[in-house]
Amino acid sequence: MSETIVAISTPHGVGGIAVVRLSGTSALPLAMHFMGGKSLSSHRATYGVFADGGRVVDEVVATYFQAPHSYTGEDVVEFSCHGSLFVQQEIVRLLVGCKEFPCRLAEPGEFTQRAFLNGKLDLSQAEAVADLIDSQSESAHRLAVNQLRGGYSQMLKDLRGRFVELTALLELELDFSEEEVEFADRTALNILIDTLSSEVSRLVASFKMGNAIKNGVPVAIVGKPNVGKSTLLNALLGEERAIVSPIAGTTRDTVEDTFVIEGIQFRFIDTAGIRKSDDLVESAGIERSYKAMRDAQIVICMTDNDEPLALPEEMTEKKVVWVRNKIDEVACSAPGMIPVSAKEGTNLDALRKALVDSVGYESDKTMLTNLRHHEAMTHILEALGHVKEGLSSGLPADLVVVDIREALYYLGQITGEVSSDEVLGTIFSRFCIGK
Amino acid sequence: MSETIVAISTPHGVGGIAVVRLSGTSALPLAMHFMGGKSLSSHRATYGVFADGGRVVDEVVATYFQAPHSYTGEDVVEFSCHGSLFVQQEIVRLLVGCKEFPCRLAEPGEFTQRAFLNGKLDLSQAEAVADLIDSQSESAHRLAVNQLRGGYSQMLKDLRGRFVELTALLELELDFSEEEVEFADRTALNILIDTLSSEVSRLVASFKMGNAIKNGVPVAIVGKPNVGKSTLLNALLGEERAIVSPIAGTTRDTVEDTFVIEGIQFRFIDTAGIRKSDDLVESAGIERSYKAMRDAQIVICMTDNDEPLALPEEMTEKKVVWVRNKIDEVACSAPGMIPVSAKEGTNLDALRKALVDSVGYESDKTMLTNLRHHEAMTHILEALGHVKEGLSSGLPADLVVVDIREALYYLGQITGEVSSDEVLGTIFSRFCIGK
Repeated sequence: MSETIVAISTPHGVGGIAVVRLSGTSALPLAMHFMGGKSLSSHRATYGVFADGGRVVDEVVATYFQAPHSYTGEDVVEFSCHGSLFVQQEIVRLLVGCKEFPCRLAEPGEFTQRAFLNGKLDLSQAEAVADLIDSQSESAHRLAVNQLRGGYSQMLKDLRGRFVELTALLELELDFSEEEVEFADRTALNILIDTLSSEVSRLVASFKMGNAIKNGVPVAIVGKPNVGKSTLLNALLGEERAIVSPIAGTTRDTVEDTFVIEGIQFRFIDTAGIRKSDDLVESAGIERSYKAMRDAQIVICMTDNDEPLALPEEMTEKKVVWVRNKIDEVACSAPGMIPVSAKEGTNLDALRKALVDSVGYESDKTMLTNLRHHEAMTHILEALGHVKEGLSSGLPADLVVVDIREALYYLGQITGEVSSDEVLGTIFSRFCIGK
Repeated sequence: MSETIVAISTPHGVGGIAVVRLSGTSALPLAMHFMGGKSLSSHRATYGVFADGGRVVDEVVATYFQAPHSYTGEDVVEFSCHGSLFVQQEIVRLLVGCKEFPCRLAEPGEFTQRAFLNGKLDLSQAEAVADLIDSQSESAHRLAVNQLRGGYSQMLKDLRGRFVELTALLELELDFSEEEVEFADRTALNILIDTLSSEVSRLVASFKMGNAIKNGVPVAIVGKPNVGKSTLLNALLGEERAIVSPIAGTTRDTVEDTFVIEGIQFRFIDTAGIRKSDDLVESAGIERSYKAMRDAQIVICMTDNDEPLALPEEMTEKKVVWVRNKIDEVACSAPGMIPVSAKEGTNLDALRKALVDSVGYESDKTMLTNLRHHEAMTHILEALGHVKEGLSSGLPADLVVVDIREALYYLGQITGEVSSDEVLGTIFSRFCIGK
């Protein structure tokens, strides 16, 4: 991993300034080569001219970060140049073309991958870097920052500590196994296992919300035709997103858009009104409404009278928010429904609050946001089940320990202590180039 | 100008990293406030946490540039943060919202405007910053870099020196005017004026090319219908830009695209084939072909036989490149025509070379690229004319000096020694925000 890599690290496009980043053993000699031999000291921003022989490419500020005190843990140089596309590309072209000090274009996420391989970040922190860059709402941002700052890693470390404790207790028993002694504190052992199981269960269960927070909480707006679903979507978004008409059955394709309320991103899905229809296109739309309901985490059930909509059976497990529209025409007297006028924008704040409450997001709880972590935690939960089963069925301690080791193996997968090139490849290919 | 300003300086979008820049007296206290009181020393990249009270927004690297050793000449802090849109906006939002240390969003180009007002750059250099950021070809880039690096400013300074010399010679005469002495070295004076005039003329004349280099050299491709103009455009661009068909009169709207050859950007304009047509749309297209020819700097006249096209009279002053297409069908025997096959891509290099030669760009000559400079130089040339006229008609030296002062005034306009808020406003509004 000593090859020197280079990439434009700032967003693609034209701007005031751009940053070209180098990492590897040739970073410093390359920088000095193109800056007329100017010497750079670590962590110091040095003004200079980036030139190819006599041809000046740009005036730049170069900052050298000496290994291991850099993002990647290797020698890093960052050139802050003018944000012209031509200049950015020219600097990269010249660096890559340099004969004396070889370097090559970086792969997506390769800087962060090197940071991981050099022990600057664990794997869950590296993943958090990508999540942070992608974050579009405060809650998604908070989850990513917590994971990046090591709060999540600390939780994993604590978990690991208690698994090791569990092993120690069992191995103690193992040492005396020839004497066929069974320790009195099997109770303590069982309590520890139960605590661990309930914590890991909570984490596994938190993935649904963590994932929704990260990617937007899916909310389906359903109801009979013409109750004002598209009008409500537009009112919530504050723009004419969906086509609205007084004709029942205007919406056919599901219309989707995102909106952030109190730091939580929601993905609203406006659907076709549910009714018996002979129109083939409309019927296809109604089929999609059912699908949207099934995929949603929250369903807004909308009526324009006080009669609640009959929900299909599979809907009963969803969080349902009842909304009674058109209170500007007829007042609402149904209890448990949020009275609104989508047309006039009346009482939408109450609806927004109900949506936020339905999510039930607690910002101080650690959540799984990553499918990979969710899978590993599910394996850990399974292993814990086997441990418990083994103990109650009188399995020898050395066989029970095998299951605990399996749990530790999956914990190590999350932090990257155990990892394969394939897993790393998948993780870092999600990144943008230059990070 | 002590208000502190803030902006995202990197291109808009999501990337590995982004840079938020502060300039003004509050820059340092603001940075320290959000970095938990961390002390920053000048030109040092300091790793830290950007937080709003207890809430961590991001891990950042902050670099402080102490006045006057900064881009703007004021205190500057640059935060290098993760390139998430949320993080970028949140950092700016928190900075602008800070009660203790006020700052506001920067206007376009305001950092560079402050650099100019604090004497870090003259006005022509400030303009070069915008040109550099916009540059899309090597030659445009070279002009901008030369102007930014002060080569152009040096030329203006030399010019100014010689105008001052001229004034001195005349004022010497003025001192003796009561004695009605006319100096013997009127000849030297005239030579100096002639040299100045010819240099300023050359600069005024260079604007046409300078402007073309900066914005792309306009090249019209004209010819009778169906000789292969659109096929040639596509072959030069290497993509199916214009619709091609065997039917004469396929192209109606002029189709335009740019391409860089040997560092020079060309703007190719494919036009409707010229013929008598009763079709109204086609006739409108043919009218546009004539307009494109008039606006072009180079006209590619294309035939598919050895007979040259009769050019309208106003075309005679243009650079004309004769192209004989379809040599894959019938060989060309006309002298002075470049034989090509647009369809097969044969001999296009000869055409490219002819285009580059037609531009006649000499990279070592200073050129005007800016309409504002062109206007000022035109005024200077006029003033020089008056000086010469005045001297030959025996006008008193003190009246002649008035014209020289006018020339100096216009020189000062270019460098910004003389400037109005209105002129500055126009210049800096061209910039992107954050530069």
